[in-house]
Amino acid sequence: MTNKDARTPASMQDVTSDNAVDVDDVEGGRSIGWHKGYVEGDRPDLRVPVRQVHLTNGRSVTLYDTSGPYTDPLVETDVRRGLLPLRENWIISRGDTEEYAGRPVRPEDDGIKHTSPRGGLRNLDAVFPGRPRLPRRGRDGKAVTQLAYARRGEITPEMEFVAIRENVSPEVVREEIAAGRAVLPANVNHPEIEPMIIGKRFLVKVNANIGNSAVTSSIEEEVEKMTWATRWGADTVMDLSTGRNIHTTREWVLRNSPVPIGTVPLYQALEKVDGRAEELTWDIYKDTVIEQAEQGVDYMTVHAGVRLPYVPLTANRKTGIVSRGGSIMAAWCLAHHKESFLYENFEELCEILAAYDVTYSLGDGLRPGSIADANDEAQFAELRTLGELNRIAKRFHVQTMIEGPGHVPMHKIKENIDLQQEICDEAPFYTLGPLTTDVAPAYDHITSGIGAAMIAWWGTAMLCYVTPKEHLGLPNRDDVKTGVITYKIAAHAADLAKGHPGAQEWDDALSDARFEFRWEDQFNLALDPDTAREFHDETLPAEPAKTAHFCSMCGPKFCSMKISQDIRRAHGGSRTEIEEGMAQKSKEFAEGGNRVYLPLAT
Amino acid sequence: MTNKDARTPASMQDVTSDNAVDVDDVEGGRSIGWHKGYVEGDRPDLRVPVRQVHLTNGRSVTLYDTSGPYTDPLVETDVRRGLLPLRENWIISRGDTEEYAGRPVRPEDDGIKHTSPRGGLRNLDAVFPGRPRLPRRGRDGKAVTQLAYARRGEITPEMEFVAIRENVSPEVVREEIAAGRAVLPANVNHPEIEPMIIGKRFLVKVNANIGNSAVTSSIEEEVEKMTWATRWGADTVMDLSTGRNIHTTREWVLRNSPVPIGTVPLYQALEKVDGRAEELTWDIYKDTVIEQAEQGVDYMTVHAGVRLPYVPLTANRKTGIVSRGGSIMAAWCLAHHKESFLYENFEELCEILAAYDVTYSLGDGLRPGSIADANDEAQFAELRTLGELNRIAKRFHVQTMIEGPGHVPMHKIKENIDLQQEICDEAPFYTLGPLTTDVAPAYDHITSGIGAAMIAWWGTAMLCYVTPKEHLGLPNRDDVKTGVITYKIAAHAADLAKGHPGAQEWDDALSDARFEFRWEDQFNLALDPDTAREFHDETLPAEPAKTAHFCSMCGPKFCSMKISQDIRRAHGGSRTEIEEGMAQKSKEFAEGGNRVYLPLAT
Repeated sequence: MTNKDARTPASMQDVTSDNAVDVDDVEGGRSIGWHKGYVEGDRPDLRVPVRQVHLTNGRSVTLYDTSGPYTDPLVETDVRRGLLPLRENWIISRGDTEEYAGRPVRPEDDGIKHTSPRGGLRNLDAVFPGRPRLPRRGRDGKAVTQLAYARRGEITPEMEFVAIRENVSPEVVREEIAAGRAVLPANVNHPEIEPMIIGKRFLVKVNANIGNSAVTSSIEEEVEKMTWATRWGADTVMDLSTGRNIHTTREWVLRNSPVPIGTVPLYQALEKVDGRAEELTWDIYKDTVIEQAEQGVDYMTVHAGVRLPYVPLTANRKTGIVSRGGSIMAAWCLAHHKESFLYENFEELCEILAAYDVTYSLGDGLRPGSIADANDEAQFAELRTLGELNRIAKRFHVQTMIEGPGHVPMHKIKENIDLQQEICDEAPFYTLGPLTTDVAPAYDHITSGIGAAMIAWWGTAMLCYVTPKEHLGLPNRDDVKTGVITYKIAAHAADLAKGHPGAQEWDDALSDARFEFRWEDQFNLALDPDTAREFHDETLPAEPAKTAHFCSMCGPKFCSMKISQDIRRAHGGSRTEIEEGMAQKSKEFAEGGNRVYLPLAT
Repeated sequence: MTNKDARTPASMQDVTSDNAVDVDDVEGGRSIGWHKGYVEGDRPDLRVPVRQVHLTNGRSVTLYDTSGPYTDPLVETDVRRGLLPLRENWIISRGDTEEYAGRPVRPEDDGIKHTSPRGGLRNLDAVFPGRPRLPRRGRDGKAVTQLAYARRGEITPEMEFVAIRENVSPEVVREEIAAGRAVLPANVNHPEIEPMIIGKRFLVKVNANIGNSAVTSSIEEEVEKMTWATRWGADTVMDLSTGRNIHTTREWVLRNSPVPIGTVPLYQALEKVDGRAEELTWDIYKDTVIEQAEQGVDYMTVHAGVRLPYVPLTANRKTGIVSRGGSIMAAWCLAHHKESFLYENFEELCEILAAYDVTYSLGDGLRPGSIADANDEAQFAELRTLGELNRIAKRFHVQTMIEGPGHVPMHKIKENIDLQQEICDEAPFYTLGPLTTDVAPAYDHITSGIGAAMIAWWGTAMLCYVTPKEHLGLPNRDDVKTGVITYKIAAHAADLAKGHPGAQEWDDALSDARFEFRWEDQFNLALDPDTAREFHDETLPAEPAKTAHFCSMCGPKFCSMKISQDIRRAHGGSRTEIEEGMAQKSKEFAEGGNRVYLPLAT
């Protein structure tokens, strides 16, 4: 298949797969009916991964795939060596970047400022052992961003890649990036990623947060969480690690990640000053940003909109400031009674980000943390500042998205996206939920999945997932999966509601399988085949039940789909046939036994 | 507390509790911070149950309670005897009903038409052993419905009861019922219920389906599922049993249910003709309706809108007819090439229902079963017929609600509720979801929870839950709980978005507890206290963590709420204080150590 063909809405069409071999389910080792395939672009090194589901009726369905080389049985992956640098030649051949010695890594980068009995890495051999590399940056401080290229009219291989992924023309991709309506986060120091795009004209994306905290979890767990999250559909991953080993954890995650990685540099900067917000300085922050940019972080949350005069606006709130970054900056501003150093030095920060193509995710440090605080003065004052910062970032050719709330009741959600789009010149909105009620801790993936689906329908480009553990504790492996699946549902529901070309073909394929009792196809087309199969087998485990014309829910007599099929069979397929044949066929139907169900297949 | 007081928005106010003693958690036997309380009405036999949550700060929050006497430690319940008939005196004292011998129970009522080796009840001693009772009906075929009373200007004790429950005046309740905008399902043969109301001016309600199927599950399990579902907040329960023991199962469920019970009489009627749809007759159906009305079924789904000419409209659908009742009626219509016997005999059916105060739930037999089929000609043709039937029912003073879809993408949801309200004169809409995508079997509580929240915001009065097992198998105990909690979230999110008086006070109480690190209060106020506590304890199990000013999610340094509190403490509470004091206090803050976090409480 050529690149050109792939640009037609193609999710139902066959895709030439280089390696259409059976792969094992990552969980149980059971052979399942899908394969890792690739759509080839115009150049040999441009191969876009897809998940190709093979149906029992001989057709196949091609789905967007975020799982990286881990699900390709022909690629040998080794987390100690990292992924192959797919984009390396594209970056080098542009000729606008240079390698350089880079900033020396210091003990405090891993939170080890003072020698102490507990000093040193918790896990010393955890230092990333992969091939040595020098960091790269734009020559002479040049902006080497996808935005800069797009504005010059250049279609990069990254843009071609996402055009194939999204089934649109590369020119649409370029236009949306050039207009600032989409971002393609791709740090020149993260050549391992499979490019993806975030913008309202494209498929709604999902971010999953991982990160050790001071209280629990290890480096290995974080890498595993990242591959696990992308296995289930996370389009980007934010590493929100705090505490020890923060630099090393990030290195492992970046070198092994097929998706863009985001961070909040403020968290690491705060570790470097032992958690004393007032000791933060622009120099420490800037140094941390450069450290992370050299490692390859693709987008950074920057809470530059939390300005000194806005802090008092939160005084009468029910839940104050609930963004970690926001509260740290507010504490700094009050301690010094000074304007935020992030706001004051924003232009210099833009120059740094432009030299690595780090995308801004302008943080909403004053987002509401409860239904009561939604859409208040503090929140919208900050949003107006984010609009101002977005324009500055664009002057420096830095790709920019805007973060959004938070806790918002349904009737106040639309105002958020409408205002953000207006104030921020349609820059991509990247929202956390929003949670539509506060009363269901342990189910905030659901309270927020509701808000996420709605705000994505109305234009949010990327959704930050919320797991069942939100407000309660650190998510484990199951929580990460539940969070990702819930948000993939919200994102896909929004794609459908937006009328995204080709989105409904996935639903149609699954519904066809359901109506035709192709149980295996239903499972394989499901967002989570394992759980769908497991739930089915819980009540009807036997193999014949996989082809039975009913399930345990209604039993054989009451299976409406079975009855529907009998009606169609008895009266012809199309409406005309039914109308014409109804009277005549009614007699035959009666003679044929008139049974609306089959006997139990036991 | 008097009835009058209770009519003010009161969910935060104290409630005199007759039995404010500690009750044990139904699960773990752990003593928890809430009590079963009662709000007393003007008459001594009118006591409205509430769930009163006692906070550690000395305040209390009063929540709507559906759990029945089972959570009252002063009431001894025995599933073999059934609940006390709360409403019996109210019904008798109206003087418009009479007891009568009733229809004799026949073996085929339990699906035992033919003697067979496997004949007889699977569990013979399962026949309900409670006190013998005679059925009751309107004297001389009189309409003894809440609608008839409301239209005559009478405020019944049932209306008073729901007025207290909903914090509105009894007159509002009467008006909404009289106008047909609300129903109060309360069969004269189900005196055990605690009355509740379904209408868009009131709290959004949730129905849970239970029911054995031909394939699995027992009577005991069904009763247990009912009490379990109401324990978590189900406002009504539909018994969708098919197969054997259908009459007996229903008797057990009714005699033990504190909430209205709904059924689909067609399912039992079909069992009586051994599953042969074409052998169904109006007489068999009518006899089944009377059988169930005598038992006390409060509302019945009647698929009278599936008319012969509409069946061909489903021919080109992706998933045909997905309603069990709809497909059975379609098969009957085609087999006989005749108009539906339900449609033809609708007026006679109205007379029967009026004599017991059974509420109609006019079924949407042609609801879409896939995204592709949403809002199609078949669906809306049936809806127009339901509007016509609604007007007929009202002529007979039969309370009526209208069932709705199904599978509907987000952008097509609003049209459903708007059309239904217009066509059906604002009769309460009772929707299944709708599911906003087809691609996530095993997560259809979530795909549908999204649609449910939206359609409830826009006016749906009751939501029929969907469990994770939808499309795959029979829900177990965990699935029932997950389905109910998900739908309580959707319902409450809608109450908030509709600005229902007092709805936000629950969220505010929980958010206050969250901001003030009152962990136990957070748990006790949560929709599911057990799971919230369990998730918290998973990472920080020790008792001190219950008062810690952080959780494992962010750890102590990064707890934004902690930092927010420090800021407030340092700079005064209100905005003015902060503004005035900011400059002066900034110095003190610095002198005070400037720590934005507390040391770990270990």
